[in-house]
Amino acid sequence: MTKLFKNETKIKIKTENIKTKVNWRILTKFIVVHNYFVLFKINKQGHNTHLYSSDFLIVRRTLEFQIKITFDRPYKPAEDKFAVEFVIGPSPQYSKGTYIPVFPNEERQSVWRGRIVETSDNVVTMGITTSPECIVGKYMIYIGVKLPYNIYYLKHTQSRYVFLNSDPVFLDDEEEREECVMNELGIIYHGAYDDVSERAWNYGQFEFGVLDACLFIMDKADMPLSNRGDVIKVTRVASAMLNSRDDDGVLVGNWSGDYTYGVPPTSWTGSVEILLDYAGSRGTPVCYAQCWVYAAVFNTFLRCLGIPGRVVTNFFSAHDNDGNLKMDIILDENGKLDRNRTKDSIWNYHCWNECFMARSDLPPGFGGWQVVDATPQETSDGMFRCGPASVAAVKHGQICYPFDAPFVFAEVNSDVIFYRRQKDGTLEVVKVNPTHVGRMVLTKAVLHDGRRDITDQYKFPEGSPEERRVLEKAEEFGCQREKASLPQSDVEVEIPTLDVRVGDNFDVTLQFKNHSDQRRTADVYVTGTVVYYTGVPSAEVVFKTPKKVLVRGEDYMHKLVEQANIHFIATGKIKETGQIITAMKVITIHNPKLIVKVTGSPRVSEEMYVSVEFTNPFKFSLENVDLRMEGPGIMPFKRKQYSLIAPGTSIMWTETFSPRRAGSTKLIASLDCAALRQVYGETELTIQQ
Amino acid sequence: MTKLFKNETKIKIKTENIKTKVNWRILTKFIVVHNYFVLFKINKQGHNTHLYSSDFLIVRRTLEFQIKITFDRPYKPAEDKFAVEFVIGPSPQYSKGTYIPVFPNEERQSVWRGRIVETSDNVVTMGITTSPECIVGKYMIYIGVKLPYNIYYLKHTQSRYVFLNSDPVFLDDEEEREECVMNELGIIYHGAYDDVSERAWNYGQFEFGVLDACLFIMDKADMPLSNRGDVIKVTRVASAMLNSRDDDGVLVGNWSGDYTYGVPPTSWTGSVEILLDYAGSRGTPVCYAQCWVYAAVFNTFLRCLGIPGRVVTNFFSAHDNDGNLKMDIILDENGKLDRNRTKDSIWNYHCWNECFMARSDLPPGFGGWQVVDATPQETSDGMFRCGPASVAAVKHGQICYPFDAPFVFAEVNSDVIFYRRQKDGTLEVVKVNPTHVGRMVLTKAVLHDGRRDITDQYKFPEGSPEERRVLEKAEEFGCQREKASLPQSDVEVEIPTLDVRVGDNFDVTLQFKNHSDQRRTADVYVTGTVVYYTGVPSAEVVFKTPKKVLVRGEDYMHKLVEQANIHFIATGKIKETGQIITAMKVITIHNPKLIVKVTGSPRVSEEMYVSVEFTNPFKFSLENVDLRMEGPGIMPFKRKQYSLIAPGTSIMWTETFSPRRAGSTKLIASLDCAALRQVYGETELTIQQ
Repeated sequence: MTKLFKNETKIKIKTENIKTKVNWRILTKFIVVHNYFVLFKINKQGHNTHLYSSDFLIVRRTLEFQIKITFDRPYKPAEDKFAVEFVIGPSPQYSKGTYIPVFPNEERQSVWRGRIVETSDNVVTMGITTSPECIVGKYMIYIGVKLPYNIYYLKHTQSRYVFLNSDPVFLDDEEEREECVMNELGIIYHGAYDDVSERAWNYGQFEFGVLDACLFIMDKADMPLSNRGDVIKVTRVASAMLNSRDDDGVLVGNWSGDYTYGVPPTSWTGSVEILLDYAGSRGTPVCYAQCWVYAAVFNTFLRCLGIPGRVVTNFFSAHDNDGNLKMDIILDENGKLDRNRTKDSIWNYHCWNECFMARSDLPPGFGGWQVVDATPQETSDGMFRCGPASVAAVKHGQICYPFDAPFVFAEVNSDVIFYRRQKDGTLEVVKVNPTHVGRMVLTKAVLHDGRRDITDQYKFPEGSPEERRVLEKAEEFGCQREKASLPQSDVEVEIPTLDVRVGDNFDVTLQFKNHSDQRRTADVYVTGTVVYYTGVPSAEVVFKTPKKVLVRGEDYMHKLVEQANIHFIATGKIKETGQIITAMKVITIHNPKLIVKVTGSPRVSEEMYVSVEFTNPFKFSLENVDLRMEGPGIMPFKRKQYSLIAPGTSIMWTETFSPRRAGSTKLIASLDCAALRQVYGETELTIQQ
Repeated sequence: MTKLFKNETKIKIKTENIKTKVNWRILTKFIVVHNYFVLFKINKQGHNTHLYSSDFLIVRRTLEFQIKITFDRPYKPAEDKFAVEFVIGPSPQYSKGTYIPVFPNEERQSVWRGRIVETSDNVVTMGITTSPECIVGKYMIYIGVKLPYNIYYLKHTQSRYVFLNSDPVFLDDEEEREECVMNELGIIYHGAYDDVSERAWNYGQFEFGVLDACLFIMDKADMPLSNRGDVIKVTRVASAMLNSRDDDGVLVGNWSGDYTYGVPPTSWTGSVEILLDYAGSRGTPVCYAQCWVYAAVFNTFLRCLGIPGRVVTNFFSAHDNDGNLKMDIILDENGKLDRNRTKDSIWNYHCWNECFMARSDLPPGFGGWQVVDATPQETSDGMFRCGPASVAAVKHGQICYPFDAPFVFAEVNSDVIFYRRQKDGTLEVVKVNPTHVGRMVLTKAVLHDGRRDITDQYKFPEGSPEERRVLEKAEEFGCQREKASLPQSDVEVEIPTLDVRVGDNFDVTLQFKNHSDQRRTADVYVTGTVVYYTGVPSAEVVFKTPKKVLVRGEDYMHKLVEQANIHFIATGKIKETGQIITAMKVITIHNPKLIVKVTGSPRVSEEMYVSVEFTNPFKFSLENVDLRMEGPGIMPFKRKQYSLIAPGTSIMWTETFSPRRAGSTKLIASLDCAALRQVYGETELTIQQ
């Protein structure tokens, strides 16, 4: 028993203490609480929180939950005054929402509503409904009974409640809610917009320890308790805390290609290991992440706290911090790419998160999906974080509203500007490509494994009058655009899409279209560069002035970096007109896949077997090969290492597992070594009860 | 001579090298640069930068400045092609604004304009006008002459230019510009709204080293060069960098009363020493500051970079981070203040800065004065900084626009809510005072020493229909207000203003007004607390239930903290009606002053004398007394220490000085010791040429 009201001097007396009980008896005519019970099963089902592996009762805000209270005699509403009190944090205060009494009688109600659902003998069932702004976190519960000169409290030592976000009325599409809050399995898209690759991810938001880790992230950020009911503030803090920059957050970014002292970003198969590692070490950042790892772990955070969230991929994402809508590509006088002077980078793709919320801090119309991004790009407003930025505000160019809307606007709307550098060092704009950046935005479809193209939620169609108006609106808010009006070139050049498997030789052919009725001659340079997905070049493999380029596997194999993209830029000058022609293409080199097979009877608690197979297709050995595997609800993360896989050799890794719960799920595996990254495999399976 | 275009491999060849000169001669028909000169005197006067003590040429953006170039023969505009090139940072890029060529001919112009002002013999005078977005910082200058196959450069090793903000068209009141950019002397208000104290401050923005220190602050923040032309970003970064939290910024905050290892905040007399200390130590934070020190040093930063800036003082400033407009005062059942549960603090006053700028990132109407605040209060958006927030947006409740407008809105608009705490722990609102917070906002008048009340720039008149609409608008953007409608109490209580000198005994009298026609009896409690100006209590001195309280000097003297305020709260209950009555008052204890006297002939470079006198008025000795003195343009910071000043003893500190420049100025002195802080003196003087 704890005297709660005088917070400074908590006095603990065990309820089992007989003397105390005797003392209570002396107050004959007053009711005494014997005990109370949390109705775990009923509440978990009603609140859709039955999947959480947690010892606490987890309920959602604004939905009623119930507790049973046992008194020493039948409860008389007119005489007996009691309250159920919820307390969070070290110095609970009514006005800060950290101390909330709940009363059973209609005439006296606090910010949370209480009511008597049922009484039978000495047992009262009480229903409690939290307010929508209620703080998300771990509460203690007390039952207080009013005596003439005092209040007596009963505290259940194990009673901890966690309140999660719940806006069922707001995101009113139930299927979308099911996908974006309840689904533990995800698909993340990468590669190129015309050759999309995908990989599965185990978000694992219901796994044991994950909710605690998410709450710990807010503690680690020193986030005031009173802000933790506000989903805008929670997501903004999380976008800063999921990367380790500034604040010792969850994940260390590494785009260097050297991952010796950590897990390579391509190797992870889920968020659970990362979050447990971080919380388990009391906040030591986990090595290493790139954009999809940040987005995937952020997605776990969102779904775990009941905030609808999804991972989206923007193909050709501009990376600029100036609210400047120009990505500069510098050519020399002959139209050849000047690598030394081309400093801006366009990411082949970039993953971020969307989360669904009301935006009470903005005028109407800007609620709904919001961009948040935990990947530390250039500092956004002095810290590594981004958002929440309203997707609707980005689409309509209303980028004057917080947070970081100009940054997101530039990511999908920048123009690529080609400059020709004159001998005296000045630059002349020779071509503007307004459609390259933000070519496509993808996310996983709702409740099935397909893709969903959501580009139209970020932009009006290219060339439409609405698009032009939006760009003008953004310019009013300080976005700078290139406005040189250039004559349309009458010759076009294109590099067609190719389907290339790693190690293959392949031809890059240039396709010219002459729209004039005259002869045209072109001097064209083709630069092929193995690039990180961030557009940072790793090694150049081709440099010629041909119509057709033969690219040999042996030339690029040892230069490939984890993402296995070759970025071709063809630039040149038409002799007759002096006009500049350009084409850009990312060729994705397709890696071999892992074969994942399951045997055994797919039932809860039955023993099953899984095998992962891989054959080294190369003429060289793979060394220090790391395999990982996990499956939501069926298998925790497992790992296996091979010191050498000789050329042409196959390996098979077999594990046993026992499904913990019924439903359809996946086993996801990855293979990683310095010479070959981004190798995945998965298999779907449905577990019976 | 440096080959600039290939940035990666700068080759330095001395211009004195005879062989190089000979080589140039071989290119007989091409013009050769011999030298060039910066027209210091003309440019400094035209740009109003003559006061800066700096070896560099300092010019303002968008105003033309001139340089003289000497060739080896007369310049022929048709044949001779040359450009003046400005370069900043390690990897200059035309498209990032870090490499800017300026051409003398009309037909070829870059982002900065160039023109030939005059030619005579071999000498060309060229006029150069920067763009308004030009980066603020130190540039190198090169003269490049175009030869048939190459470009030759001449670089003056000492040529450094600094460009400052200049929006003369925008802040179009010339007197206001004179005050808020050019004035080195300031007045900062403190105390209570009905008993305002003031102190002088030496901003010293033109002193040697101060401009370098301000540029260093941006370096220390790792601020990208390309952002340093944007006054919105510059001021936001500065608001984070002027405090040491998060980022090892300029000043360490200390409100503890123990300043053993640094300079007490009350002891500083100007910004120069602080900035030179910080930059001289390459970024070691300086100890210690409180709000007015942050605001004063920020003001130096603003004025030094040419951004119009002023220090404002808000009396009764609410300190809240939730966008929640409630300051809670908790009373017990009898109406007595419950100090343990009253956690919110209202600062007696708070100083911040306003700076004048266009807000291209916002819709029209929100430019002009903007609040920026470097004092680390609670984290604003996860970092210790605040603003720029549009004063117009705050006044009109349009707090959806960045940055931190809800926070500033709460500082001037919060309500004080009195709660009565019931026995069962719940709180009932018994009184709402909507006028206490943000009672008055003051700044120094333009070009003279008076006060200027600018409250109406932040708020519409209390009780006006506009004010109500603004509060409703702010609520739409998520500000929470208390809306209990309470019956007007028919009894009022007030504590009148008192003029108290330190050590005096004084009476606090309660004045009651009974608006009813019946007899009323009140139980009133008066709490008097010595508080820091932040409202944090240091020690309680009185606690009674009287109609008149005698406060004895000996009771409060040894408990006084640096600001010497006693905060009285009278709360009580009317017996007949049960209504709660409240009154709040800050009594400022007036300290003795220093007497500063000047003798000698007030002329530039003449030796003069200044004496600072002080008499210890107390019955106890003052120990380890620290005196400081400085005067803009006449005396750098000086310091003197006395280990003991016995009761009733006088000291006199005499120094000599030689004025550096003509004009009217001040000598400002402060005295500080653990038992007595906030003792100031000053004298005005006008120096003749």
